[in-house]
Amino acid sequence: MSYPNQASHRYHQSQGLKRRKDHDTSANSKEPERKLADVWREIQGQDDWVDLLDPMDPLLRSELIRYGEMAQACYDAFDFDPFSKYCGSCRFIRRRFFESLGMTGHGYEVTRHLYATSNIDLPNFFKKSRWPKVWSNKANWIGYVAVSDDETTRCLGRRDITIAWRGTVTHLEWISDLMDFLKPINGNKIPCPDPTVKVEYGFLDLYTDKDENCRFCKYSAREQVLSELKRLTETYADEEMSITITGHSLGSALATLSAYDIAETGLHVMQDGRALPVSVFSFSGPRVGNSRFKERIESLGVKVLRVVNVQDVVPKSPGLFFNEQVPPPLMKLAEGLPWAYSHVGVELALDHRNSPFLKQTSDPACAHNLEAHLHLLDGYHGKGHRFILSSGRDPALVNKACDFLKDHHLVPPNWRQDENKGMIRNNEGRWVQPERPKLDDHPLDTHHHLRKLGLASEH
Amino acid sequence: MSYPNQASHRYHQSQGLKRRKDHDTSANSKEPERKLADVWREIQGQDDWVDLLDPMDPLLRSELIRYGEMAQACYDAFDFDPFSKYCGSCRFIRRRFFESLGMTGHGYEVTRHLYATSNIDLPNFFKKSRWPKVWSNKANWIGYVAVSDDETTRCLGRRDITIAWRGTVTHLEWISDLMDFLKPINGNKIPCPDPTVKVEYGFLDLYTDKDENCRFCKYSAREQVLSELKRLTETYADEEMSITITGHSLGSALATLSAYDIAETGLHVMQDGRALPVSVFSFSGPRVGNSRFKERIESLGVKVLRVVNVQDVVPKSPGLFFNEQVPPPLMKLAEGLPWAYSHVGVELALDHRNSPFLKQTSDPACAHNLEAHLHLLDGYHGKGHRFILSSGRDPALVNKACDFLKDHHLVPPNWRQDENKGMIRNNEGRWVQPERPKLDDHPLDTHHHLRKLGLASEH
Repeated sequence: MSYPNQASHRYHQSQGLKRRKDHDTSANSKEPERKLADVWREIQGQDDWVDLLDPMDPLLRSELIRYGEMAQACYDAFDFDPFSKYCGSCRFIRRRFFESLGMTGHGYEVTRHLYATSNIDLPNFFKKSRWPKVWSNKANWIGYVAVSDDETTRCLGRRDITIAWRGTVTHLEWISDLMDFLKPINGNKIPCPDPTVKVEYGFLDLYTDKDENCRFCKYSAREQVLSELKRLTETYADEEMSITITGHSLGSALATLSAYDIAETGLHVMQDGRALPVSVFSFSGPRVGNSRFKERIESLGVKVLRVVNVQDVVPKSPGLFFNEQVPPPLMKLAEGLPWAYSHVGVELALDHRNSPFLKQTSDPACAHNLEAHLHLLDGYHGKGHRFILSSGRDPALVNKACDFLKDHHLVPPNWRQDENKGMIRNNEGRWVQPERPKLDDHPLDTHHHLRKLGLASEH
Repeated sequence: MSYPNQASHRYHQSQGLKRRKDHDTSANSKEPERKLADVWREIQGQDDWVDLLDPMDPLLRSELIRYGEMAQACYDAFDFDPFSKYCGSCRFIRRRFFESLGMTGHGYEVTRHLYATSNIDLPNFFKKSRWPKVWSNKANWIGYVAVSDDETTRCLGRRDITIAWRGTVTHLEWISDLMDFLKPINGNKIPCPDPTVKVEYGFLDLYTDKDENCRFCKYSAREQVLSELKRLTETYADEEMSITITGHSLGSALATLSAYDIAETGLHVMQDGRALPVSVFSFSGPRVGNSRFKERIESLGVKVLRVVNVQDVVPKSPGLFFNEQVPPPLMKLAEGLPWAYSHVGVELALDHRNSPFLKQTSDPACAHNLEAHLHLLDGYHGKGHRFILSSGRDPALVNKACDFLKDHHLVPPNWRQDENKGMIRNNEGRWVQPERPKLDDHPLDTHHHLRKLGLASEH
């Protein structure tokens, strides 16, 4: 099987994460021999990406694309075919995750799959099989935790723990599920000392809900992430580490929320007092909480870089009327309202009208598409700079799941599909949906780590 | 690439065309050791299939499925994706046709691809690429001529020349293109002594039209078939031969029309005076001509076995009101009307409600589907007999291009598709539509054979 994920190819080219020869004008290349291992703290946002965005820093661009591809992997690996027996699950076991996606040189290992329960108010986020017998009635795969291998760790300058959250594969119905209703964050067992810190109700539910009777969602997404992070930070306690969280669309909201949670819970603080950098590279994300949430997450030192396309409607939601762009005095007045949202962190605003590869379209799913964002990043060199692709990243990837490339590129729209919908011919010559290897269960030590965090009872 | 065509598998099982062990009750098995090589003339309809249809003769059933799969190959090999550069063409060069479809043991070689021009009144039959540069502006691949290899010829008892005509891949729009208008057959250069022999205008056009400026349709489908048949019958003049014509839907109409033409033109008569049997195995075919056409084709000795599903609307068109079921005196009166149609030959009526594998559906495309007919044949043992599959033919094939199987079989609807719409990654790591090998041109001796037939000028 051959997967249209550019990552392996690109990553091989840039293996060692040295700066690639690219089409950058030399004006942009401040330090041609700069190595990521030396400057990774800046790239992760230590200085809030000041001077790295305009003109666009080539190393940062390359890292943004790399993390974006880890978010894209959540879509490529998700089984969203309602006629599949495994609809709603991850198509690949965690040990062969990147390999199965053709990202063989990616240099990370998935250490845990993440699941969420569908007992919440975001019905359009969840996918269910049409068949009566299914792998799970209540759970959906929602992302993964991965850690860099030794070789990649050397190149990156630190052991990197990445959490990638899946967004919604289909159109944008989920936006209409958002209740435009901010809820105090500490109401859902996230310890926040300030009751005026509020986030969107739906995101909070998705992150914290669980179902004791469900094999895959007996732990909430939150519990799964925190216990895995606890385990990994203990495993690599002697090393330099970073926590990088990524996601697209609704996954961007979960990335922001979980980054906040990690910092608020203090999980990034090691026993020796070191605080691991916590960074979010988010794509096409909606607003998550109110301005108090913004202040809180930023004061906790979480660095958020939000990549958006100015033509995309999702980053304008929720909070279309009351948001961070309203004059501060008015916003102060509005703060008591449940619909006064605020974006967090630093925005990198792209515009799909700048790419000569893309056609004019009024389809909001195109403007929101993650592969399109990665393409836009690849050609972005700063405000007002010409759009010039900086790597061998294939523009054809844009059309994997949308109809966005100009016709003369001869790339069919929505071309990413499995041969025969994954049907194979068995030994008797019958065409069947193959059984999958046993789905990864939650690790047995989850409870152990939750107890350490004070999130589970002693039994 | 793996193609969902059951044929190779099934054919391997029945290789040598000995009667397979199947689920037939022994009551049905008149001559368990009967060999096709001995009885092929009966199977081809020498005696109008008297006593072979009820109860259903196992050898005939097996042969009907075999020819049906040759008609099905026309769909499986047709490129109907408007985003393909080769939309409207055959996806495979003729020498690797069956092999590319996974029909490796099929035992025939395609000797010629057939093309038709789109300058006619059946717009919904033709498929055109969305791209500006295409393989042909005017032509569509419309079927093929194949001949049995030596080993298969021994099993069959004769060298079999098969002509398979493609129908329409998409829904049933083409029926609405039918003009319900009968036209004298000799108006379009088919030599018929009787001007009252009439056929549907659209079929006649499709069969006889050409475009001198088009590389692929500079010869009409008729000229392509007749010249190829002339060449093949000369090549194998010393052998026993049969001419078998098959097609589904609109392809069934072309099968009937071309069979008539071959017989009327006398192409089946050898120099030594032998007349080769000309047989049509058609599936889901509409009516083709008037009752004079029926009388003429039957008097010429052409044997037509029409497999239909009584739930399918297509065999009821055209001529919904005036057809062979109207009492003869009334039909005599109606004969002057241009819409008094008549079916030809012998009908084998199946009913999809008899298969326990299929669900109730009001989708006319399901009732019309060719794979569904082959499945129905496989389970058919005669009127009132229980539906029992007689071979290992996979019911999952029914859902290749429709949504007809009951849910509990866990077979996704419309599951036949190429990985990544045929896109491949080239040497530079780019995803592209691969170039095809040079498309097969018309053989250089076409004109030569047409001249022999008096169908072309001396120059």
